[in-house]
Amino acid sequence: MASNDAVQKAADKSSEETSLTVPNKHLVEMKEDILYHFALGTPTHNFPALFGDVKFVCVGGSPSRMKTFITYIAEELGINNGGNDFPNICAGTDRYAMYKAGPVLSVSHGMGIPSIAIMLHELIKLLYYSKCSNVTIFRIGTSGGIGLAPGSVVVTKQSVDATFKPQFEQVILGKTVYRKTDLNNDLAEELMECAKELNQFNTVIGNTMCTLDFYEGQARLDGAICSYTEEEKMQYLKAAYDAGVRNIEMESSVFAAMCNLSGLKGAVVCVTLLNRLEGDQINTPHHVLNEYQKRPQKLVGHLIKKCLGRK
Amino acid sequence: MASNDAVQKAADKSSEETSLTVPNKHLVEMKEDILYHFALGTPTHNFPALFGDVKFVCVGGSPSRMKTFITYIAEELGINNGGNDFPNICAGTDRYAMYKAGPVLSVSHGMGIPSIAIMLHELIKLLYYSKCSNVTIFRIGTSGGIGLAPGSVVVTKQSVDATFKPQFEQVILGKTVYRKTDLNNDLAEELMECAKELNQFNTVIGNTMCTLDFYEGQARLDGAICSYTEEEKMQYLKAAYDAGVRNIEMESSVFAAMCNLSGLKGAVVCVTLLNRLEGDQINTPHHVLNEYQKRPQKLVGHLIKKCLGRK
Repeated sequence: MASNDAVQKAADKSSEETSLTVPNKHLVEMKEDILYHFALGTPTHNFPALFGDVKFVCVGGSPSRMKTFITYIAEELGINNGGNDFPNICAGTDRYAMYKAGPVLSVSHGMGIPSIAIMLHELIKLLYYSKCSNVTIFRIGTSGGIGLAPGSVVVTKQSVDATFKPQFEQVILGKTVYRKTDLNNDLAEELMECAKELNQFNTVIGNTMCTLDFYEGQARLDGAICSYTEEEKMQYLKAAYDAGVRNIEMESSVFAAMCNLSGLKGAVVCVTLLNRLEGDQINTPHHVLNEYQKRPQKLVGHLIKKCLGRK
Repeated sequence: MASNDAVQKAADKSSEETSLTVPNKHLVEMKEDILYHFALGTPTHNFPALFGDVKFVCVGGSPSRMKTFITYIAEELGINNGGNDFPNICAGTDRYAMYKAGPVLSVSHGMGIPSIAIMLHELIKLLYYSKCSNVTIFRIGTSGGIGLAPGSVVVTKQSVDATFKPQFEQVILGKTVYRKTDLNNDLAEELMECAKELNQFNTVIGNTMCTLDFYEGQARLDGAICSYTEEEKMQYLKAAYDAGVRNIEMESSVFAAMCNLSGLKGAVVCVTLLNRLEGDQINTPHHVLNEYQKRPQKLVGHLIKKCLGRK
């Protein structure tokens, strides 16, 4: 019995580790819930029937990129939609776009922490109402690299703020609380293993700086407003590099914080569109950028196929 | 000569007050500028020819709402596009959508401070390269009201942060600076005058709280994460009301700060979709919400018509 108990405890722990937590005691008191920014709701949609089989969620800024991803992953997994396009599940709104192919959900989140946070609140509730378990979530995005050749892919170890600290500032009732921004280490290692197997592009593991702004917040010289010199910019970016930062984007910190609080296993995989030590403007030809943007999709797609035993 | 000089000085001052400033000395050194998130650039687009006549810019979160607005204002101003739809000028990207009808530009900005900030940086540069002058900019949006009947329109006096202070925190090279968030008082008064003339819906002038988050940041009880009680929520919202806050949204602070820095005359006009003292969920029927969302458009449209002598 003792050993069975130990196994049970281990199983419980394992199940506990991968089950979804919704740390909000008010939700159980709600008779219905409208996920306003998805244009979905419990009174009108049967969530378990629609989403109960979801095991992987991929999120990214651009709606069209998330549509491209669902088409790509469906093809890779041999799922077809009767020859039709996969429909946008959130067609009732233009805030976000959502697509589903078998166990994979693909959702756009717009740009910046507030935009992805709204989406994640509603996504976590959607998965909870759908009674999903063992869900892994990936952010597949674009970023500015530091000290890397453009087109390199960065798998995030920790998301850090503009002072290189691994924390996310959340303001609640006017008071600031700090949340941890570590990402799942095992998942990051698995992605690095997949990168080796693919062997198609440079992939590194490193810290990702998450900022609230693309121009002044990322030390760019080419915004409408700029008060610092090129030397000050370079000093800041080099300090970021020395602190382990390999790329800069605008969503990873709240993504990591919300994964940690809800028990979602999460990874951030971003391609670098440029090397910020060499410039600020993204003036690479469109077709090259397009190819770059497919790299995180390929890497995550490879991992999903492995997990599903298709590789 | 003395009196002529005085006139010239007055004219200079008047012109100075309404001309666009781009507070970034690095821009003059740039041979070309790619406005990446608009998919527009100085090497490929003749900005003065395309945008030189712009006098009014209306921005709002949703791309489809901004398309609706351009159709509405074009009709009101008697501008037609040869019977065709107005095309999306930023068709090369899905980050933002942009439409133009005569002197009016309509641009979407997504949700949240980071998203609107990227758009404003690129918009201010676009207006600057286009040699525009005397430009007025309006944010027409949706919001949660405090102590107002749903459907009320709030013209913002000051944008305040989550501690009710009229300031915007901008992080530059890892250091926080504070920027003023007052909006143009004359323009706000003119809008209130227009509301009286229209006499179609309740319109008030008040402070607008701008948050980085829709759920915990706005004291909602219905997010995936919530650690406070209903009493604490109500206490916070009532304190906001006592501080002059009449609505809550997610973009006004950086909008006001960037208007002030660039010399744009700006106003924020948002309709309230619900009264937050009575709930958190937006469960009003779709057609009612649609009608609410047209109210800021009508108010701003009325002002534009007056300014152009069409009223």
